[in-house]
Amino acid sequence: MIIVMKHQATSEEINAVIQHIETLGFQAHLSQGEERAIIGVIGDERPIEPEHFELLAGVERAVRILHPFKLASRDFHPADSVFKINGVSIGSAQVIVTAGPCSVESREQLRETAAAIKAHGAHILRGGAFKPRTSPYAFQGLGLKGLELLREARDEFHLPVVTEVLSPQEVTLVAQYADILQVGARNMQNFALLRAVGEIQKPVLLKRGMMSTLEELLMAAEYILAHGNSRVILCERGIRTFETATRNTFDINAIPVLKSLTHLPVIADPSHATGKWELVTPIARAAVAAGADGLIVEVHPDPKRALSDGAQSLTPEHFAQMVSQVRRVAEAIGRTV
Amino acid sequence: MIIVMKHQATSEEINAVIQHIETLGFQAHLSQGEERAIIGVIGDERPIEPEHFELLAGVERAVRILHPFKLASRDFHPADSVFKINGVSIGSAQVIVTAGPCSVESREQLRETAAAIKAHGAHILRGGAFKPRTSPYAFQGLGLKGLELLREARDEFHLPVVTEVLSPQEVTLVAQYADILQVGARNMQNFALLRAVGEIQKPVLLKRGMMSTLEELLMAAEYILAHGNSRVILCERGIRTFETATRNTFDINAIPVLKSLTHLPVIADPSHATGKWELVTPIARAAVAAGADGLIVEVHPDPKRALSDGAQSLTPEHFAQMVSQVRRVAEAIGRTV
Amino acid sequence: MIIVMKHQATSEEINAVIQHIETLGFQAHLSQGEERAIIGVIGDERPIEPEHFELLAGVERAVRILHPFKLASRDFHPADSVFKINGVSIGSAQVIVTAGPCSVESREQLRETAAAIKAHGAHILRGGAFKPRTSPYAFQGLGLKGLELLREARDEFHLPVVTEVLSPQEVTLVAQYADILQVGARNMQNFALLRAVGEIQKPVLLKRGMMSTLEELLMAAEYILAHGNSRVILCERGIRTFETATRNTFDINAIPVLKSLTHLPVIADPSHATGKWELVTPIARAAVAAGADGLIVEVHPDPKRALSDGAQSLTPEHFAQMVSQVRRVAEAIGRTV
Amino acid sequence: MIIVMKHQATSEEINAVIQHIETLGFQAHLSQGEERAIIGVIGDERPIEPEHFELLAGVERAVRILHPFKLASRDFHPADSVFKINGVSIGSAQVIVTAGPCSVESREQLRETAAAIKAHGAHILRGGAFKPRTSPYAFQGLGLKGLELLREARDEFHLPVVTEVLSPQEVTLVAQYADILQVGARNMQNFALLRAVGEIQKPVLLKRGMMSTLEELLMAAEYILAHGNSRVILCERGIRTFETATRNTFDINAIPVLKSLTHLPVIADPSHATGKWELVTPIARAAVAAGADGLIVEVHPDPKRALSDGAQSLTPEHFAQMVSQVRRVAEAIGRTV
Repeated sequence: MIIVMKHQATSEEINAVIQHIETLGFQAHLSQGEERAIIGVIGDERPIEPEHFELLAGVERAVRILHPFKLASRDFHPADSVFKINGVSIGSAQVIVTAGPCSVESREQLRETAAAIKAHGAHILRGGAFKPRTSPYAFQGLGLKGLELLREARDEFHLPVVTEVLSPQEVTLVAQYADILQVGARNMQNFALLRAVGEIQKPVLLKRGMMSTLEELLMAAEYILAHGNSRVILCERGIRTFETATRNTFDINAIPVLKSLTHLPVIADPSHATGKWELVTPIARAAVAAGADGLIVEVHPDPKRALSDGAQSLTPEHFAQMVSQVRRVAEAIGRTV
Repeated sequence: MIIVMKHQATSEEINAVIQHIETLGFQAHLSQGEERAIIGVIGDERPIEPEHFELLAGVERAVRILHPFKLASRDFHPADSVFKINGVSIGSAQVIVTAGPCSVESREQLRETAAAIKAHGAHILRGGAFKPRTSPYAFQGLGLKGLELLREARDEFHLPVVTEVLSPQEVTLVAQYADILQVGARNMQNFALLRAVGEIQKPVLLKRGMMSTLEELLMAAEYILAHGNSRVILCERGIRTFETATRNTFDINAIPVLKSLTHLPVIADPSHATGKWELVTPIARAAVAAGADGLIVEVHPDPKRALSDGAQSLTPEHFAQMVSQVRRVAEAIGRTV
Repeated sequence: MIIVMKHQATSEEINAVIQHIETLGFQAHLSQGEERAIIGVIGDERPIEPEHFELLAGVERAVRILHPFKLASRDFHPADSVFKINGVSIGSAQVIVTAGPCSVESREQLRETAAAIKAHGAHILRGGAFKPRTSPYAFQGLGLKGLELLREARDEFHLPVVTEVLSPQEVTLVAQYADILQVGARNMQNFALLRAVGEIQKPVLLKRGMMSTLEELLMAAEYILAHGNSRVILCERGIRTFETATRNTFDINAIPVLKSLTHLPVIADPSHATGKWELVTPIARAAVAAGADGLIVEVHPDPKRALSDGAQSLTPEHFAQMVSQVRRVAEAIGRTV
Repeated sequence: MIIVMKHQATSEEINAVIQHIETLGFQAHLSQGEERAIIGVIGDERPIEPEHFELLAGVERAVRILHPFKLASRDFHPADSVFKINGVSIGSAQVIVTAGPCSVESREQLRETAAAIKAHGAHILRGGAFKPRTSPYAFQGLGLKGLELLREARDEFHLPVVTEVLSPQEVTLVAQYADILQVGARNMQNFALLRAVGEIQKPVLLKRGMMSTLEELLMAAEYILAHGNSRVILCERGIRTFETATRNTFDINAIPVLKSLTHLPVIADPSHATGKWELVTPIARAAVAAGADGLIVEVHPDPKRALSDGAQSLTPEHFAQMVSQVRRVAEAIGRTV
């Protein structure tokens, strides 16, 4: 941590800051510039917030030097993390494709989707049983029945399954049915839930909050890692900006930035990132071109009858085209699908 | 809902949209403009999302006409809602001041703070027992012990208490100790938690998510109201923008806009909205000048020793000055403190 | 400037950075922490950008320590700047009210407006002659004819006049008619225009760009000051965020933050900040409560016939109410109107 | 335009709105829903703003139906626009690569860069002579001398040249030296400049403002087109969001969205979009994968001695790698470089 003193800070104020730093168990290192004094805090600063120092008299601001995350950092784990989930390797040279309906609606809908995505090359089946919905009046998912249908489709089509978990008390239940637990964008900083999924031994798909910084995403991953679960997959799914032409703004920069900051696999969700099925394929191609380790997309056999997110769902035919195009882009950069 | 067809939409496409509308149980109303056809959907559109129509062939976009919330809307409840909580009326002409430490740290810290804020005119005591923290390595709150200390201070100083609840399974416990349950900004769309606090009979202080629109805030309130709990207090606490000079951007426009859209009381949190104690008093004055029904601010007897949020905490002396200034502003617009 | 080296930076890399700093004429100051080396750059860092260092091998990031502005900074000019413009003092204890139509439309419209605002206590008349419009098909202002009408109204009602200038070659012309030149939000970083208004001797009203940081606003002011014109008035008029309920988000925090960073007067534009006339009065009260030195609002004798910005224009009656309410708030905090 | 009346609007209010619409020369079309009345405005709504209606009594809001741009719209010009500039076709199946230094610094620097980019496959040379800089103390470009050096390099290396123009009075001068005039992001809504470049017969490279919606970008293009210049190239260069890990957030969604809304060519600037040279190549690959018609990147023979934007400049070697990777991605989607 670097503490920048105000232009007119007195030597009493500077000394008080140094004493305060030492009281906290750190070493202080004063550097007197032409216009301002600067005080370095030597030691592991992670547990303290810069704001902590900003209320001391004479302090203008404090600047963090170290990233606040450690287990998630590539500094301490230089090699890529690769997880094997039921025979599928995430984080390797192969780009992993996850697909399926937004919500599980019926046995027929799920079987039809699973058969189609399997045929066209998907590796993992997604589907929502417990649905977070903005409106209390909207379809909230089939719940336990949805989990059972996912399990059936998983076993029939030999596809590992990912589904969302909404609250800590449902983690054990969902973990009995799913191969990967999803923490959704709106729950990225639901710390009770992060702790709960950190304490089980199933991989977690952690979606970036729509207004969360990359540092906050990595801190959310750090929660899970710090509670003992080392298999976290990060997912960029679009952030909220002033632009209203699309549902979200897909932060493509996030992909190479995350790959440089962390060893964890990074995948992309072009369905939520755009909100429109016509945009899913170009953005899927872009995500892979930028270095994403996988994709997660919504597919529905009849999008206009979907109970949620129809507008951003691909038909099986469009999904087949997307996989074919994405495969060519992956090969152009030395990867496979 | 209004459905805008594409420039070149065919009459087959228009007819298919009309049939789809009728299949859903609504009436359709076609209006052929010079450049485009427009189709109105007649009926209660709240359960459907505009995106639902955007994947039909020939549709350019669909625009919602009604607000998606109903119980929270002033249209259906024109008079202000006023709640009485242990003798304190929220939503009336009196501006209610809630104050206390970010985290409950010890009996002494809490008693000292409670005594000071009571002496300077606060109506409600705040304090965190279960703390949502961005870092897993930061102080996470005293938990149950914190609740007990809050209860003691409540009884000794005759101040109703508000504290945050982080997960559905803790709602019953927290409700035994607190007079008002707070749902924090990061949990504003934790729908499992919204449902849980909707099912108890304690008032809820619902903070706006830093990334949430006013419509989403009102939809979160609608969840609580729809589950049977009619006492929801809304709180503007700053949103996230590109500006980094302050921790958040306090959306002062939100106060008069919310007051026009909903009958629920609206309060302001200038501590989180700014992140700096020097800014708390001017922003508190502004919030009251704009029509806020109350304030919630962080106060600590010794901010530089605070275990969290010290930089934005007022000392008891600064709190006294704030109350005095806010009182004069309230009187200037015909209210009291 | 502080340069943070990467975790694994070698001593060769560190030495190369030190040499590079010294080549630029600065002193370097190395501080070896537990995890990283930090290098301080001693000297006036204002002409260099932090990014300049970020491409040196082994550098993680560079952090600016000094604000990049100097003439605008309160550090170097601690007392408030107060400008006298035709007998009106801006930056003093009196809150200055500027009002008038968005566009000058006709002699009658302008006279009627000027008479009304004068009667209700305004100090300065505003009106657009050259209008920046998003659409090439919208009314672009009366141009020179508008300037002449402003001059007439100025002389008849003894009100100094402020009007916008859109391009460098029009500065001399506009300066012949107006007492204050406005640089609009969309031109805040039109550096050719900033230079041109820096070279004349008329006060400048500089509006914050809708997505400009406060630091960028102060740098734009620095351009004008550095070219010799010391009379710059800053104006917060709302920023662009994800919220769509209002035209812009009024950044109320900006007012006390700017007042602490700079000696220049700071005024508020609640008309553009909200886009809706019903919100203008509560936001005007809030701005004054937060410490604004003045207000600028749009007034039109018949807003529904306005050629631009009718929705956010006050009628003369509403303007009178606004002034009366704002006056009471100003008095509550020890100021006058 | 659709006008949504308030829940409790009276029939007098509805009639007054209808009369007002008819006074403006449009037809009105009333549709009485269960909860609200809706009034359609029939006719070319482009010259009116929705806000115009929002101040009429009883109106809740007005919603634009048509895009406000016409000449830029694909609705009225379905085929892609392809421009031939000195033998280079922009908007065709070939992805066009523009490269060069941020600022022209010297004859040697420019010749060295031009030779290198030509050798590695670039089609157009970029270089700044008049530089828009945030700080008045930073290098402002070589001005006329820079234009002369660009012309020399253009003729020696047979590369068309693009350079930025900062003010209307410089348009004629810059047009004598450059093949394409760039309007920079900060000037995207400098309407005086848009008019001036609309009146010459040189192609214009129009960069999206960092705070501008896609609709505003297309309206800025409409200004140029409406003044008679049909050759406008749009450029996505990153927008400003809350994320601070990169200089800007590259809005990759903008590429397919723009390609669907307009017939104009769309290129991408991964240098400004990221601010870091390491990110330029992955984002360049992504932009092409998403459908961009070209790239514009900063290249400098010795980035750490660059007078501006060194951190985001590629060396000639990195540029060669970028072109080679981008070429493979282009071929994967059926295009060339």
